[in-house]
Amino acid sequence: MDPIKVGLLGLGNVGSGVWEILQRNSEQIARRAAGSLEVAGVLVRSIDKPRQVVVPRSLLTTDAWSLINDPEIPIIVETIGCSGGTTEPARSYIIAALKAGKHVVTANKEVLAKHANELYAALAEGRGGLYFEAAVAGGIPIIKAFKESLAANKTQTLMGIINGTTNYMLTRMANESLSFADVLADAQRLGYAEPDPTSDVEGDDAAYKLAILASIAFEADIDVNQVYREGITKITPEDLAYAEQLGFVVKLLAIAKSDGDAIEARVHPTMIPAKHPLASVNDVFNAVFVQGDAVGDLMFYGRGAGSLPTGSAVVADCIDAAHNIRRGVSAPRNGHREPSKLKSITETSSRYYINLRVVDRPGVLATIAAVFGESNVSIESMIQKGQKQDPVTLAFVTHQVIERDLQAALDRIKDLPVVREIYNVIRVEGEA
Amino acid sequence: MDPIKVGLLGLGNVGSGVWEILQRNSEQIARRAAGSLEVAGVLVRSIDKPRQVVVPRSLLTTDAWSLINDPEIPIIVETIGCSGGTTEPARSYIIAALKAGKHVVTANKEVLAKHANELYAALAEGRGGLYFEAAVAGGIPIIKAFKESLAANKTQTLMGIINGTTNYMLTRMANESLSFADVLADAQRLGYAEPDPTSDVEGDDAAYKLAILASIAFEADIDVNQVYREGITKITPEDLAYAEQLGFVVKLLAIAKSDGDAIEARVHPTMIPAKHPLASVNDVFNAVFVQGDAVGDLMFYGRGAGSLPTGSAVVADCIDAAHNIRRGVSAPRNGHREPSKLKSITETSSRYYINLRVVDRPGVLATIAAVFGESNVSIESMIQKGQKQDPVTLAFVTHQVIERDLQAALDRIKDLPVVREIYNVIRVEGEA
Repeated sequence: MDPIKVGLLGLGNVGSGVWEILQRNSEQIARRAAGSLEVAGVLVRSIDKPRQVVVPRSLLTTDAWSLINDPEIPIIVETIGCSGGTTEPARSYIIAALKAGKHVVTANKEVLAKHANELYAALAEGRGGLYFEAAVAGGIPIIKAFKESLAANKTQTLMGIINGTTNYMLTRMANESLSFADVLADAQRLGYAEPDPTSDVEGDDAAYKLAILASIAFEADIDVNQVYREGITKITPEDLAYAEQLGFVVKLLAIAKSDGDAIEARVHPTMIPAKHPLASVNDVFNAVFVQGDAVGDLMFYGRGAGSLPTGSAVVADCIDAAHNIRRGVSAPRNGHREPSKLKSITETSSRYYINLRVVDRPGVLATIAAVFGESNVSIESMIQKGQKQDPVTLAFVTHQVIERDLQAALDRIKDLPVVREIYNVIRVEGEA
Repeated sequence: MDPIKVGLLGLGNVGSGVWEILQRNSEQIARRAAGSLEVAGVLVRSIDKPRQVVVPRSLLTTDAWSLINDPEIPIIVETIGCSGGTTEPARSYIIAALKAGKHVVTANKEVLAKHANELYAALAEGRGGLYFEAAVAGGIPIIKAFKESLAANKTQTLMGIINGTTNYMLTRMANESLSFADVLADAQRLGYAEPDPTSDVEGDDAAYKLAILASIAFEADIDVNQVYREGITKITPEDLAYAEQLGFVVKLLAIAKSDGDAIEARVHPTMIPAKHPLASVNDVFNAVFVQGDAVGDLMFYGRGAGSLPTGSAVVADCIDAAHNIRRGVSAPRNGHREPSKLKSITETSSRYYINLRVVDRPGVLATIAAVFGESNVSIESMIQKGQKQDPVTLAFVTHQVIERDLQAALDRIKDLPVVREIYNVIRVEGEA
């Protein structure tokens, strides 16, 4: 049987991993793809640049279109990513390949999150395939889980640790009582954080991935711009210490829920019970926790980034594509997508941790408790610290409350003369 | 598009879950299967028995062959299981349906583990499909993970908590310092353990599932009778307390490893570091931890049994089958299987926890340490308890050692006059 040809766009971190796996495990891959996969060309920015992998010079090209337009190449693997605030040229490459009926494997979360409708239109036109296991949570097969393994379930909740940089940072902040700034500097030195860390620490990266996951899990057209995002920049070692004392840990979670009608999608620092399966996901590891109406609780755990883990997902997609190509069928399961309106964050409900700095005077707690009560905010637990100091810290955990009511309460509380500062507010999720 | 007809064999725990999911989520399933699935008949033992689900009486039959031989029914779902020490009639039903070219979905670990070669031969003859996601770890999509998502990886290690009954028992024994017998009685009263618990507590159930997983992960023909198995009946609260003190927890693990040439497959109580991802998998939950050469560490966690979780996996398989039927293709990925010889347990290597009862006399440790040393058993740590008592407990953890050498050392140690008893020996696996 003739090998199936693959055009590889990009030879950076992910592209190198794809190349290495295709060489190293070629025999096994050929068995499992019912025939071999052959890289027919590799798009690079510069032919002569030194690289981490050895690729025959004859395969290198600086002309993407020579691969995309080659009728002998049925699989295009896009690993060039996005930079500089634009999704070009990755978007154009993917769309052109899809329109030409090719099977496109991509790790590009930003293009998928921002241009999904355009991509699906191009896919429908070309009748090839679109595969993107590597775009969310690296080597963890969470896309296939939602598309196929959980197909019989109505997904109720998904909660993911899907940004390794911030999970690494929060783990170190908690274990070593370090500040955000100190850990960020370290993470940058170690290469876990970008020189401009905004996309990671402000939650944009996680929001892209959440939009992709939620769109599959809920069969919905999710507007990524409407996904609420709040980063970890305001989290302090003090918050993490209070969390521990209350039996929680703090993670940057990407959360999506559906009650059958409305969908919510939000990325924010979250306190979860120390016994929750997500709580022990540390360092750069990722995990996605799912609740389905039939399957109950599920969790998928693994490496969310890295050359070989992400390459593992890309090559698995290539094998799927090869099966579809050999059988002469287009990828069948790219999903139904209902137009959907996301709940605004003020309509969502959650439990909350609230840390207030107040003056140390009798009756202060009663004053604050009265405001909470009048705003329908019910308190589950409270810790007071630093008696006989000024200010004193009051840390509350609320019962489930609608965000709008909580914000109304906080607006009144911040203006109380006895309150010096609302130090921090962190949402609380999950049963232990 | 005409519905695709399903013949459901069995309406017990799993069969009822399948029926319920197919009814409850029928619209979504029809979207995701590119057409609806319709149960055309249900095999039951007695038409008039009261049931947990309402099935129209006209669908019930006591004649399996009326479903298996019906040319209008392309999907046969087998959920009757095995009992009484025989794989009949499930085995015959599955084989006949496969030979007839049907797509067979089964949750039957025992038939799969014992008759795999016969099943694959029938599959090749009929060119239908064989799907068994539900046979291992209930709702956790671990079969598809090995067949498809990890297809580009050489699996190095898999370690699973794949028997919920024993995990429930070990969790309670550890948390409440209860004996095996006490917890077993409770588990039986709660329905978590069978009246005859042998298959669970002696490791047979886990061995069936391990044989299935390892055969896919390593593309090997695994003889389930050669899978080493050791149950949890000898584990005591004292062992669990020592484990905790040494920084470990004890789980019944199903372990398979390959070094590229030889495969080992074994089920036994295992000490793992308290920080290992498997260590916090408690109660009836299952999990499978995988190390692949590209993907690194992965873990899948969820409910390993139960009507709806297992039904979730069965219906996902039915949806896969429906896609294959609509596209007119047979299931393509039932795997290459090399004949393989499993390593005997004496050839495997592991770390070991060894608990000895010895007389309290100077020089005893030196005597024992000398025997270990002469047998190539290197000691990593030791705890001595009960000084000035008789006997004293010595608990050792060894470095990596070949089982044959360990057994040779233990044979000599048990005959030493200073040794009263080898209280327990438990293998140790996993990096924290």
